[in-house]
Amino acid sequence: MGRVIEDERLDAVFTALGDRTRRDIVARLGAGEATVKELAEPYDMTMQAVSQHIRVLERSGLISRGRHRQTRPCRLEPETLEAALSWIEESRRTWSERMDRLETHLARVQERDDR
Amino acid sequence: MGRVIEDERLDAVFTALGDRTRRDIVARLGAGEATVKELAEPYDMTMQAVSQHIRVLERSGLISRGRHRQTRPCRLEPETLEAALSWIEESRRTWSERMDRLETHLARVQERDDR
Repeated sequence: MGRVIEDERLDAVFTALGDRTRRDIVARLGAGEATVKELAEPYDMTMQAVSQHIRVLERSGLISRGRHRQTRPCRLEPETLEAALSWIEESRRTWSERMDRLETHLARVQERDDR
Repeated sequence: MGRVIEDERLDAVFTALGDRTRRDIVARLGAGEATVKELAEPYDMTMQAVSQHIRVLERSGLISRGRHRQTRPCRLEPETLEAALSWIEESRRTWSERMDRLETHLARVQERDDR
């Protein structure tokens, strides 16, 4: 996947995750498919507001909706979640490699001072 | 940490990560501290625009700035990145446990049919 498309996708995915209701919906869909009506049930929110959140999640690729049944159940798209995870892991790796190098360096300095 | 504070923090962290320039800054700070001027260097953007991105990152807790030197270098706050990672991993765990259960169930059905 091209860098620009990947950037666009990650912009949409992280922005979609930047709202607690949408994170909650993602977490609940991890436990299984659900209709918009079922998803809306626990929230003190209009169906319209919930539908709007679901559209944001759908556009980001975090969830998809069935085409055939009238209720069009929502399901999680785990590969999209995986893309966000990979980005964070990659940044963490850079950081921890630097910390490892720093530790090695400090240990060497310590060793030299101990002589 | 309370659930509400945690929700607020994750809202801010994921929203901050929902922009490719800010993700780029986070990734670059993984390799070491940098001043705002150094961070701004590669972008075709005003210093004001870069400073704005840095303020969003600072408010989210993803980065912090030194207090003493005049340049106030920016540094990554890895625990904040870790909080975002944990949230995604948790959602993924729910999903993969369900997949495991589904597989076990399908294997049992298959076994019964084979008899």
